[in-house]
Amino acid sequence: MNDHDKDDHHKAPRPLEFWFDLASNYSYLSAMRIEALAAARRVPLVWRPFLLGPIFKDRGWSTSPFVLDPVRGAYAWQDTARQAAKFGLPWRRPSVFPRDSLLAGRIALLLADTDAVGPFVRACMRRNFVLDQDIATEHDMTEVLAGLDPQLGLDAAAILRQAGTAEHKLRLRAQVERARAAGIFGAPSFLVDGELFWGNDRLDDALVAAA
Amino acid sequence: MNDHDKDDHHKAPRPLEFWFDLASNYSYLSAMRIEALAAARRVPLVWRPFLLGPIFKDRGWSTSPFVLDPVRGAYAWQDTARQAAKFGLPWRRPSVFPRDSLLAGRIALLLADTDAVGPFVRACMRRNFVLDQDIATEHDMTEVLAGLDPQLGLDAAAILRQAGTAEHKLRLRAQVERARAAGIFGAPSFLVDGELFWGNDRLDDALVAAA
Repeated sequence: MNDHDKDDHHKAPRPLEFWFDLASNYSYLSAMRIEALAAARRVPLVWRPFLLGPIFKDRGWSTSPFVLDPVRGAYAWQDTARQAAKFGLPWRRPSVFPRDSLLAGRIALLLADTDAVGPFVRACMRRNFVLDQDIATEHDMTEVLAGLDPQLGLDAAAILRQAGTAEHKLRLRAQVERARAAGIFGAPSFLVDGELFWGNDRLDDALVAAA
Repeated sequence: MNDHDKDDHHKAPRPLEFWFDLASNYSYLSAMRIEALAAARRVPLVWRPFLLGPIFKDRGWSTSPFVLDPVRGAYAWQDTARQAAKFGLPWRRPSVFPRDSLLAGRIALLLADTDAVGPFVRACMRRNFVLDQDIATEHDMTEVLAGLDPQLGLDAAAILRQAGTAEHKLRLRAQVERARAAGIFGAPSFLVDGELFWGNDRLDDALVAAA
């Protein structure tokens, strides 16, 4: 083994942090692909649901820039559809945007370290960006959770109860603070040892950096 | 020949319009690569210099968002350096940003349909983003033009004179109007039969669409 081997080939992959908002169309493009891509490179994946709303407010934006700037928005919808086609992902432009993702974000955070997080996130994303349905209410979330593989052993009522506690609500707020502190200004974002990669377009670069 | 061949393989490549500002760091990443990439795919390349300033003003921005939003800016510099390294391009973060690109833009527009446009644009980009020098004054432009291949047969004094005429100044203004009308909101942008692709990250997609 020479130095080159030591440096480049025998280091353990580093964790890839995936920061996303369940209301974000570009997060959809990453969320539907990231678990398989990380597994293929043996990169440990860390799910980091957060909320874009407070991050946008820091910039003086009351909602998504795709809503505030119609020119930018028209392009974003054309571009997302084109990218979804490129990746072979189903896509329907949501009739409501951005959808309220607060409760879904709380549940994603609750499940973040479990085997259920990938299936839950993909089911929410599919609901929002393929089925064009809301992800806001306890009823919506009960439907999503009920549709997941029973082998995951999820108790929808218990999850909703826990997601609604004051303590857990503060956890999601703290998560947004962590995003801010990491310099995150949009979603999806990826962190590898603190190095920031922004946008679905950087998923591959982030995977290479982690691997 | 079957229908599939007719549809997919025997169509002539369509022109690729490259919309750029000589002050734009992400335009640099495309400008240094696009001529060779288009030639490799036999895609006719149309150079479309324009100015981002008026486009940013439409959004209420007095300058680049990378200046107005320090968080966004810090990321942009890190990201541009990383992307330049990925493409094997030299890179130095400019000590002045965005640089005044008005005169250089006028000259690029003057040369846009000539063999000199690629060499001129790359020389300006290199000056701004590798040598960290201005591209604003007649002196700067004389230096750039003098450094180009003599076989291009350029007359620097005549070019500067023509670039400064009222008629030519209006041509660049009209170019910005065309950008606006095409829905362009940033640079680089690419147009293929009116279809918009935004950002250096979409250069490959635009080339595929054109080819």
